[in-house]
Amino acid sequence: MCASKAAEAATESPSIAPLIDLLSSEMARVNTTILDRMDSKVPLVPQLAGHLIASGGKRMRPMMTIAGAVLGSGDEAVRAPAVKLATAVEFIHSATLLHDDVIDESKLRRGQNTANALWGNDASVLVGDFLFARAFELMVEAGDMAVLGRLAAAAARITEGEILQMTITGQPDTPLADYLDVIGGKTAVLFAAAAAAGIEVTGVPGDKVKAVHTYGMELGMAFQIMDDALDYSASAAQMGKNAGDDFTDQKITLPVILAWQDASDAERGFWQRTLGEADFRDGDFAEAQTILARHDAVNRSVEAARDHALRAGAALAPFHEDDRTAPLAGALVDAALFAAHRAS
Amino acid sequence: MCASKAAEAATESPSIAPLIDLLSSEMARVNTTILDRMDSKVPLVPQLAGHLIASGGKRMRPMMTIAGAVLGSGDEAVRAPAVKLATAVEFIHSATLLHDDVIDESKLRRGQNTANALWGNDASVLVGDFLFARAFELMVEAGDMAVLGRLAAAAARITEGEILQMTITGQPDTPLADYLDVIGGKTAVLFAAAAAAGIEVTGVPGDKVKAVHTYGMELGMAFQIMDDALDYSASAAQMGKNAGDDFTDQKITLPVILAWQDASDAERGFWQRTLGEADFRDGDFAEAQTILARHDAVNRSVEAARDHALRAGAALAPFHEDDRTAPLAGALVDAALFAAHRAS
Repeated sequence: MCASKAAEAATESPSIAPLIDLLSSEMARVNTTILDRMDSKVPLVPQLAGHLIASGGKRMRPMMTIAGAVLGSGDEAVRAPAVKLATAVEFIHSATLLHDDVIDESKLRRGQNTANALWGNDASVLVGDFLFARAFELMVEAGDMAVLGRLAAAAARITEGEILQMTITGQPDTPLADYLDVIGGKTAVLFAAAAAAGIEVTGVPGDKVKAVHTYGMELGMAFQIMDDALDYSASAAQMGKNAGDDFTDQKITLPVILAWQDASDAERGFWQRTLGEADFRDGDFAEAQTILARHDAVNRSVEAARDHALRAGAALAPFHEDDRTAPLAGALVDAALFAAHRAS
Repeated sequence: MCASKAAEAATESPSIAPLIDLLSSEMARVNTTILDRMDSKVPLVPQLAGHLIASGGKRMRPMMTIAGAVLGSGDEAVRAPAVKLATAVEFIHSATLLHDDVIDESKLRRGQNTANALWGNDASVLVGDFLFARAFELMVEAGDMAVLGRLAAAAARITEGEILQMTITGQPDTPLADYLDVIGGKTAVLFAAAAAAGIEVTGVPGDKVKAVHTYGMELGMAFQIMDDALDYSASAAQMGKNAGDDFTDQKITLPVILAWQDASDAERGFWQRTLGEADFRDGDFAEAQTILARHDAVNRSVEAARDHALRAGAALAPFHEDDRTAPLAGALVDAALFAAHRAS
């Protein structure tokens, strides 16, 4: 019975549920703080911020901060500042989403109208700026200058990643290294800094901070590569956002880079006309999917995501040795595999 | 001879030149730091930021920080962190300019093409975000948590001011108090925080920090009211920007608020059609200027600016008593009068 259960567990899909369970009480405090601190005497701020932030997602990034803090200390008082840091992380993320939607002119996010579609670009730019400033106020309250420096540097690198993404837009011959730079900056750096900030604020030695930073970085890479792969594989209904967006936005992502590497002249011509010149015709997205399938490019992207997820898990080795941290480390390993597994 | 010279000086226009002279060596360090720290491995960042920042202006806001620091201490080593803070202040200001130009769809600033006109809105949003993040990195390097909190709070209030400005746009019956809230937030708070940060980092008692904060706040109010008054009085060539911009952008500023208070029904109808409904016809801007002249609204705005400038000067009383700080305090008084005097 026991043996068969173990076998069953091994074949089960990885899940993020254990992580959510383990951190639920501290994440409830984060959610309360998020709602409290998005407030402003200017009513549009909580309206617009609330629309984005209440529309949810899994709060993966602030969860990284709380996870880091729990790995760092069993003492709730020691890790108390992490609640403010986690809120700051969510605000930085929300600010970048508001600005991204302006830049991409997106009308849907997670199946809902975007803030810019409802309130206009002006409001989205400004409320994004407000959340960014409020994030730094929260970090000041958390009171740790090293952590503040870490998150400020991450914020700068996020925007560099986004700017680099803009400069490679429409260039289907983009080298793989540039793509990895883009997603490292725009996505993985925040996961890494969020997790590292959480453990650093508890005052543990630097090697443990570094291990958690690596976990966050690799998880973030896995997460973004999956997102990019799914944009070519899933329907809009499954994704809760406009599938094919990357294609019509001329974004250069891993599936396209892999397919370009061994492409025929005809295929390169297709990518050049569509992604390169934005000359889109009926049936082009289906044709893009057909070409990607010919090169197994979506599956190979998912495998790349899985490699990053495995590296994320491996980074947590030091935390498996301690009985207090082992269950959370296990849940984090599972969450990483889940990030590279969903809907594939 | 001496008496006649004094009489001549008393009737001279106030000048900002003595302030610029007194602070020139430390402002040279600020300028170098600005150029160094806008750098990024992503080439578009220094290109776009350089376009805005090299196009100049008087660097009034970082000058406030350096002035605060010199009022606080005669020891260059004590005030060294102020150079980084001044750079951070300029970056925060530059970020808001980049985002403002996106929001206003401005094509000219200080007589030059705006960054969004040259590189597009996307780039302006992202490089603004980068400068904002870099500003916080500089503040972390300056290493004073109280100052960091002061500037983070100011950044949040700036965006609140801008959002409030957006919500009163197109409403010519806006109460005076709302207008004062808008310009206090979007302009004066940064002058105040910039100046206060400069003196606070030198470790002086709180009453001196408060005095310098008041100076910055009142100077900022004077500065913005003059800017708003000049938008209805000067030609584009004199201002180096599009005169009449506030009118066509349906921005509600002090001249309009004053003219609205005693307006005839016909005049209110005019403001409602133009500022309220954006139904602009040939000759409307000239008609607006005629109505404002009938109510002496531009001159009354300039007088309001002058009142703020006088209050700015009065706040510096404690610094006139000390021989070391008296010349700089005098130059700051003169600079405030200059801000409320230019081109009027």
